[in-house]
Amino acid sequence: MTRISRSHPRYRSLVTRARLADDFRSGLVVPEGLIAHGRAEAFDYLLGERTTPSARRAIRHAADWLVAAKVPALSVNGNVAALAAPGVARLTRVLPSLRVEVNLFHRTPQRVYEVARRLRKVGVTEVLGLRPTQRIPGLPSNRARIDRRGIGSADVVVVPLEDGDRTAALKRIGKKVISIDLNPLSRTSVTADLPIIDELSRALTELARQIPAARRRHVRAFQPFDAEGTRGAALETISRRLAAAAGRRRIRAGPSRPVRRSALPPASRTGRPKRRTP
Amino acid sequence: MTRISRSHPRYRSLVTRARLADDFRSGLVVPEGLIAHGRAEAFDYLLGERTTPSARRAIRHAADWLVAAKVPALSVNGNVAALAAPGVARLTRVLPSLRVEVNLFHRTPQRVYEVARRLRKVGVTEVLGLRPTQRIPGLPSNRARIDRRGIGSADVVVVPLEDGDRTAALKRIGKKVISIDLNPLSRTSVTADLPIIDELSRALTELARQIPAARRRHVRAFQPFDAEGTRGAALETISRRLAAAAGRRRIRAGPSRPVRRSALPPASRTGRPKRRTP
Repeated sequence: MTRISRSHPRYRSLVTRARLADDFRSGLVVPEGLIAHGRAEAFDYLLGERTTPSARRAIRHAADWLVAAKVPALSVNGNVAALAAPGVARLTRVLPSLRVEVNLFHRTPQRVYEVARRLRKVGVTEVLGLRPTQRIPGLPSNRARIDRRGIGSADVVVVPLEDGDRTAALKRIGKKVISIDLNPLSRTSVTADLPIIDELSRALTELARQIPAARRRHVRAFQPFDAEGTRGAALETISRRLAAAAGRRRIRAGPSRPVRRSALPPASRTGRPKRRTP
Repeated sequence: MTRISRSHPRYRSLVTRARLADDFRSGLVVPEGLIAHGRAEAFDYLLGERTTPSARRAIRHAADWLVAAKVPALSVNGNVAALAAPGVARLTRVLPSLRVEVNLFHRTPQRVYEVARRLRKVGVTEVLGLRPTQRIPGLPSNRARIDRRGIGSADVVVVPLEDGDRTAALKRIGKKVISIDLNPLSRTSVTADLPIIDELSRALTELARQIPAARRRHVRAFQPFDAEGTRGAALETISRRLAAAAGRRRIRAGPSRPVRRSALPPASRTGRPKRRTP
């Protein structure tokens, strides 16, 4: 892995990036996955690299749906395995009914094997989707292949970092779709029944944390979710932060926490990295 | 190259992405370059995938500086060669004094060769930086290596898709730096004397178009540029577009063109691609 100085103002983001580039070299991540990660990085940066209050509410609601589900399933692609395999494992531990299924856009036997291996390594005991047994109608090629025991029989499907066509196809066959995607304007976020606009590993950690509370709430039915509202809140967060960064405060501060100026580099920063005593 | 339907609402962006993934397979582009492209894609999308009025003013000013320069130079890395080699060639045709220099963060002889080959193929006759003869002080490793005949002797340097450390180092050794970068908050955009916040191939096309007019203006000195103003305008454009997308119009419309709603997918879009008669 490339060596990155801990003193760099964007240390965490750079480490993730370097890790992903390594996973790419091993074949787990495809070139298109690296580009997709870059897009996500930009949105995370704009959102402040934290779980916003509205994302937290979406995650809480998602926990209710997952607990109420007869068969909850989680779709795992190369980027998901590379970025958040431990988060997937944590979620299966608190929600053992969750079916974890490998689903690859760029599917090769080697990549399926790599994803499954990564998941098992961190403690996911059963990985589905290795030999898909069913197809989603209306989707071309490999993207349509699903596992009858996993997404095939699920009533609620969590799709992190999913493409828009597949999200729409899952909805058409009657699944309730929970997406995890940093872009509030992506077709996935726009199509999902319950879009979580948050960084994947943060979102999975928070989701796992919320499952016991959801169980205590005993919610049996799927309470409707204001998807438009959560996307609007994310857009407004970004818009407000950018307006603040532009130094023009024409926008009224919203009800959520004030903008942390430190998250977006102030306009005067000249690029000198902060020093830390070692 | 992956086949992409012309009917896809984001056809152009997908073609660029696929081309970059191909150039990656040939070694021209590195994994980190793909991630960087993803970040840029997100910002281009947020800016409306067009040259904004303030970017156009920055480009016009950059043309003046390039014409006034004793020795203007342009730094070319893997992503620049992959995304905009024809734009670089076009600029050298209207500005023959421009020194084109290969500068790679992840430098290998093979990549230097690939970048030079790509440039020559589209008509750049002299490519510098193949055997760097000088170093920028205070920068570690390969990033510091420059060509005495190129960036080494230049008074104005154009750095498209550059990293922040290198931009700052070039300024420290007295160069006037013109950046081309879609992220108005990147350290490169914040550090450059004249940041052009625009997509690279659009910006280079416009820059080449502006050179003859700059020559007619006979500007001999480097007129000061309002870098803060251009970054602020970009932030405001994004902020305004997002606020519009969120359906909340709390922000007063700026003096520039009204938001084209079609550029950001409306919240109601369900993901069905538009049909075209073939």
